[in-house]
Parts: sequence; C-alpha cells; structure tokens
Amino acid sequence: MTYSLLRRLTAEAIGSFFLFAGVIGSGVMAEALAQGNDALALLANTVATGAILYVLIAMLGPISGAHFNPAVTLAFALRKEIKIRPALAFVLVQVAAGVIGAFAVHLMFDMPILQFSTKARAGLGQWTGEFVATFGLVLTILVLLRTRAEAIPMAVALYITSAYWFTSSTSFANPAITLVRSLSDSFAGIAPADVPGFVLAQIAGAIAATTLAGWLVNSAKQED
Amino acid sequence: MTYSLLRRLTAEAIGSFFLFAGVIGSGVMAEALAQGNDALALLANTVATGAILYVLIAMLGPISGAHFNPAVTLAFALRKEIKIRPALAFVLVQVAAGVIGAFAVHLMFDMPILQFSTKARAGLGQWTGEFVATFGLVLTILVLLRTRAEAIPMAVALYITSAYWFTSSTSFANPAITLVRSLSDSFAGIAPADVPGFVLAQIAGAIAATTLAGWLVNSAKQED
Amino acid sequence: MTYSLLRRLTAEAIGSFFLFAGVIGSGVMAEALAQGNDALALLANTVATGAILYVLIAMLGPISGAHFNPAVTLAFALRKEIKIRPALAFVLVQVAAGVIGAFAVHLMFDMPILQFSTKARAGLGQWTGEFVATFGLVLTILVLLRTRAEAIPMAVALYITSAYWFTSSTSFANPAITLVRSLSDSFAGIAPADVPGFVLAQIAGAIAATTLAGWLVNSAKQED
Amino acid sequence: MTYSLLRRLTAEAIGSFFLFAGVIGSGVMAEALAQGNDALALLANTVATGAILYVLIAMLGPISGAHFNPAVTLAFALRKEIKIRPALAFVLVQVAAGVIGAFAVHLMFDMPILQFSTKARAGLGQWTGEFVATFGLVLTILVLLRTRAEAIPMAVALYITSAYWFTSSTSFANPAITLVRSLSDSFAGIAPADVPGFVLAQIAGAIAATTLAGWLVNSAKQED
Repeated sequence: MTYSLLRRLTAEAIGSFFLFAGVIGSGVMAEALAQGNDALALLANTVATGAILYVLIAMLGPISGAHFNPAVTLAFALRKEIKIRPALAFVLVQVAAGVIGAFAVHLMFDMPILQFSTKARAGLGQWTGEFVATFGLVLTILVLLRTRAEAIPMAVALYITSAYWFTSSTSFANPAITLVRSLSDSFAGIAPADVPGFVLAQIAGAIAATTLAGWLVNSAKQED
Repeated sequence: MTYSLLRRLTAEAIGSFFLFAGVIGSGVMAEALAQGNDALALLANTVATGAILYVLIAMLGPISGAHFNPAVTLAFALRKEIKIRPALAFVLVQVAAGVIGAFAVHLMFDMPILQFSTKARAGLGQWTGEFVATFGLVLTILVLLRTRAEAIPMAVALYITSAYWFTSSTSFANPAITLVRSLSDSFAGIAPADVPGFVLAQIAGAIAATTLAGWLVNSAKQED
Repeated sequence: MTYSLLRRLTAEAIGSFFLFAGVIGSGVMAEALAQGNDALALLANTVATGAILYVLIAMLGPISGAHFNPAVTLAFALRKEIKIRPALAFVLVQVAAGVIGAFAVHLMFDMPILQFSTKARAGLGQWTGEFVATFGLVLTILVLLRTRAEAIPMAVALYITSAYWFTSSTSFANPAITLVRSLSDSFAGIAPADVPGFVLAQIAGAIAATTLAGWLVNSAKQED
Repeated sequence: MTYSLLRRLTAEAIGSFFLFAGVIGSGVMAEALAQGNDALALLANTVATGAILYVLIAMLGPISGAHFNPAVTLAFALRKEIKIRPALAFVLVQVAAGVIGAFAVHLMFDMPILQFSTKARAGLGQWTGEFVATFGLVLTILVLLRTRAEAIPMAVALYITSAYWFTSSTSFANPAITLVRSLSDSFAGIAPADVPGFVLAQIAGAIAATTLAGWLVNSAKQED
C-alpha cells in the first residue's frame, strides 16, 4: 500500500516528536535521578533511545520509511528514491515536530519551554565521532534494505544503542535532532554555536555511506 | 481459533496478575537493593516491566488480545472491535487480578497485604506525561495492527521501556494499574487522591490516539 | 528431524552447563565488581542470565526441547510428551552438567572447586516467590507452544529477566539449578538446607501451571 | 546471491572496524564516566558490544558470513566451507580493519593513536575462560546454522553479552580482537605479552566446538 504525502508527513511528525522527546526527556529524567553518575545517566538515556527507535521504525516504516532524520532523507534523495520537494517537506516536518517534542518535554518536567543548551561539543575528536556515527547509521539502513529489510527496526535501535557509547560525541547522527537538542539546556543538549560542525560531519558521513553502500550491495546484482 | 469469553477473561486475569506483580514487585526489589540511587532503581524497574510485557503479550495476545489495560480496551470498544459487555468484564478482571497481583507481591516480600501509597503524583507536567504516554501506547498498538502486527509484543514492551524515562510521570499509561499502584506504598505507588487525575489524562490520550490512528491507517485503504 | 536420545542428552548437558555457569559465573563477576551495590550486581546477573537463556533455547530447542530444568521436564512428563525413562535421564544430565558448570566457574575465577553456599533463603514469602516464578515459567512455555512457538526462546529469556526482580526469591524456578547453586558460596548461592523448600514450591508451581495450561489452550480446540 | 571476494573482504573490513571500535570505544567511554565502578563500566561495555554485534551480523552476514573473528574463520576452514586463501585474506582484513578501528577510537577520544595496553590478563582461570568462551561462541554459530540460522545475529550478540560476565576473562573469544585490544591502554585492553595465551586458548576452544558440532548436528541427518 502507498500512502498520501499528507499521511507520510504525519508519520514523520509523529516519529520525530516521540524520538526527540524520547532522547531529550530520558536525558532529563536520567540526569535528575543519577546522583551525578554520568555512566548511569547515559545508560538510561541509551536504553530509552534504543527502545523508542525500534517502536517508531517498526510502526511508521511502512508508512513514511521512518526517516525522522535529514541525513537519512538525504541518502534516499541521493539514490533518487525520494524527490526533492517531498524530501524538503520531510526535513521541515522532522525539525518542526522535533521542536514540539522538546517543548513537550520541558512542559512535562516543569522546565522553561524555550531554552538554549550551554553544553560545548566540538573539536576534531567529536566531529570524527559524528562522521563515523552517521556513516554507520546510513550504511546499516542502506545495506539492510538489500540484505534483510525486516531487521531494520531492531538494527537501527541497536546501532544507536552502541554508538552512544563508542563515539566520543555520544552519536547524535541526525541534523534535525542536533538542532533541536540545542533548544534544551539538559543532559542531551548541545550549544547552538556547535550545531554547524556536527551537521557538516553528519552530512559527510551520510554521503560517504551512500557511496559505499551503492557499490557494496546495489551494483552487486549486475556485476557479480 | 477463537476462544470462549471465559478463556479470554482468564487470559486477561493471568496477564494482569503478572504484569501488575511485575511492575510493583520489581519496584519493591529495586528500591530495597539500590541504596537510594533512584536511577538504578528505575532502570531495574524498567527492564523488569518491559521484559514481562513482551512475554505476556506474545503468550496471551492470540487468546484475549492481551489488553491488561482499560485504556486499550476502551480503544477497541471505540472501534467497535469489542462489545460493551465483554469490554466491561475485561476491565473488571484487569482490576481484580491486578489487585491480587499487588497482594501477592506484598506476601512475597513480607509486607502488609493491604496498604495505601503516600507518593504524591500530580500537576500539569505529570498529567501531560500521562496523556503523552497513553497516546503513544494506544497509537503504537493500533497502527502496528495494520502495518506489522507480529511486532506488537516487542513494540509495546519497548515503548513502555522508553516511556518510563521520557515522561515525567514514569508512564503508568493504564487506569487499572494506576488504581492498583495506589494499593502499594512502594517505589511504584501513587497516592489514592492522585488516581483520578492520572486516569482522566490516560482516557484522553487513548481517545486522541484512536482518532488519529483511525485517520492515519484505517481509512487509508479507501482514500489512497 | 528427530535426534537420538544420546544427542538429546548431549544437548541438555551443553545447555545446562552454560546456563548454570552463566547464572553462577555472572553472579561471581557482578558481586566482585559492584562495590557492594546489590541492585547493580543483580542487574548484571539478570542481563547475563536472560541473554544466555535465549541463546541456549534457540540453539538447542530443536534438538532436545531445551528443558535444562526438571520442572519443565516434569511438565512434559505430566502431558505424556516425554516418557519416564528419558525424563529421568534428562534430569540426571541437567544436574550433572550443571555441577560441572559450577565447578568450571570456580576454576575460572580461581575459587575452591568444591564449596557450599551459606546464604539462607527460606520463609513463606520466598516459597511463594518460587511457586509464582515456576508457575509463570511453565505456563509461558506451555501456552506459547500452542500460540506462538517461535517466540519461546525470547519469551523464556525475558520471563526470567523480569522474575529475577518481581519475586522475593530472585526466581530460581528450577530444581536442578537450586541444587547446583547450593554448591557455590557466591552471589547466586542458596544454603543446602534451604534447597528442599524451594524445590517443593517449584514442583507445586509446575503442576499448577500444567493443569491451567491444559484447560486454557489445549482443550480449546475441542470445546470452543 | 553470491558476492565477489572483494565485496566479502570489504564486508569483513566494515564489520571488524565497527566491532572493534565498538568494543574499545565503549570501554573508553564507560571507564571515563563510571567513577571507578567497574560493574557499571562493564555493563555499558556489554550493552554496546552486544548491540553492535547484532547490527553487523544481521547486515553483513548475507555478504561475507560476518566472521570478524579468526576463530570463526578457522571453524569454517576446518569444515571446508571456506578455502585456505580466502580464509587467510579474511584474517588479514579482520586484523587490519580492527587496528584502524582502534586508531579511530583513539582519534575520537583525543588519545594517543599508537599505544599499548598494560593490563595483565593471564593464568589458568582466564585461559579456561577463553577456552569456554570461544567454545560456546563457535558452537552457537555452528549449531544454529543447522537448527535456526535466522537467529544467529541475536544469538551471537546475546552470547557475548552473557559471556562478558560469566567468564573470568570477560570473553574476548576472538584472536584478532585480542591482538587489537593490546593496542589500546584502556578498559578493554590486554598487555601484548598476554596475547599468545589467550589466542591459544581461543583456537583450542574453536577446534573443540567444531568437532562437537560436527557430531551433534551435522552427521545427524545420516545416522538418525
């Protein structure tokens, strides 16, 4: 079944709302309860993020493809599997619904609705982290689409679960969530001035992964 | 295969007993062992709750639909997929078996069988939390029923796993469990006076999700 | 494909060795690292136990049924799905291979090979815990065999994951593992004198679950 | 579909890079955040390792078999399911890509790129641990290939999740990762002088498991 663009955009909005609220809200809760132990806070943040990713991709993947991420939308646009206009609409909806998700977290936790993060996240190490994180995320999606598509919800959830820990940047891997996390002065935040560096590294990672996946699995049918 | 109403009610009773005992019992155990670190206690409570949800929905879903939750039964009643009389019987059984589950926990942990929670849970933030939590839970179930029904046990388990952390109310999302948790003066408790506010927010969330899901996936076949 | 009794017993031996070594070994490691925080130790013990259960049941279920547990073998004997002689051989192998698993843990962790637990575990609360834990475990297996058999490895793993926390006894739910855990003076141990009380509660739980499951799903085909 | 050797080696390289970066990087992050609580650090390391294993095996298994481990490549060579030359190429690529993964972690975390571990890991207990760990890993893969191949990604992920805790060596179970971990003076490291003992125990475990699996499931078709 194909869904109308309005339904697809609604699916992206629902998914981005819950994903971004999940990431930020669990960070707020974890930091509030963890008594300063950041390993415990990040572990709770990890479990909550991985879990909601599985749910949203399993549920909404059949409707919109479950991007919730401009880097993923970019990859599909590069592969000409989504046209420019709907791709731009996807990105707008991801950001807008994500902002509402952040605001909902602030409302739920009795925090000021509008706020800006002061957490500095920059430097070669962290940008390398975002490049590696986004490269792996997009590669996982594109390769699994050809080899074992039904495993994508679990694989993306577990990829981010792992990447939160093995990258120095805790793996944002998503330009929209990077932007939205600058609007929350909490555990998962990032200072607005540090957003562009992260986004550039993410876009570079997505392009590299799309290129590699195109050679690794897509051309395999013809050449082998 | 269809099952008789008695078997369906038995399945709801088994599931509600183990779900509510799981939620409350793991809260008791976690609080007893966590040395005052609430992040660790909530993490253990989360793992135990998510795990038992998968088991009970996988096992009993084919028999009764595995509601264990008046908000879910309400959603199916609104969609006319369960009639009023069996729906009321479902809710009665959910509450009664859940109370027995709470009593069993108190017996197992050598606590007074009958007790009342003194934990205050109220305010706009927490009610918003319950609205969002129940909205997401019912939406997950209703959309997955149309897009990928076999993923429902894992998706519901992981949704609650995440929602325990990203909502300020720790996501009760279930009027029966809210009532029963008022009968346990432990980690997972809620003061009896705060039950109505939670239940109203949950009912509102369930109705909103049923409406959205009806448009998003159910009418899609005709209109697209 | 059916396997010879020797192969089935070998599968029971491999599974019991790794399951019991997994339970006891992860308890030793967790206690050694957790700096006295028992919630953290039990959480690690839980994750390790649930994980190895999934592996062993997925791998060996098609060969021997993956009992690794006299209470499960008893349930199948009551249902006449395994004869008395192979059932007794199963139980002997479960205990013997489990003892070797405990000894292997002691060897790996540089502990005395032969030792006895001094951890008291008794009383109405804990016996109720073992009854409830084993009742739920056997019910999960028997109902899923009729409703969704492919989910059994994950469901049993997650059932024990949860039951470690919601029962006051931390859910041994297995007479063979109860006996073997009396041979390890570590986190997962139980004093030898307390073994009979646990085993009796487990047998009662298994019989009750077999009876209920027989009515709930097995007779359903004829009566409904 | 069969893939060219170049594509298979690329898959081994991608998988080894992310697996080894995942193991080492999550160890660095966990140790940095855990405030000296090694149970918490190992728990985070465990979750990150198990998660990335699922992703990489699900994604790359259909291309290269997803070995990422000379002990696994050895097992398939013993079974004559991979020839000597491609097997040697697999092992070279596993080590080389793994070294790059370790270097990437050091770059991401602003650590010296080239370093050597000083963590002593030796003795009969730890060697027994590595024998048991590798025996169980290879047995899991070889038996599941015959009984339930689609469960391999989850089973291997959860096997290592458990074995990190129930073996005294925290279950390296992989000669290439043992070598590479000697190049990182961090949580997951091993002193270079202790590598040979671990590797010998791993090879012995792999050979024993291949022999047992050959009898248990492979000859079953003919003999039973």
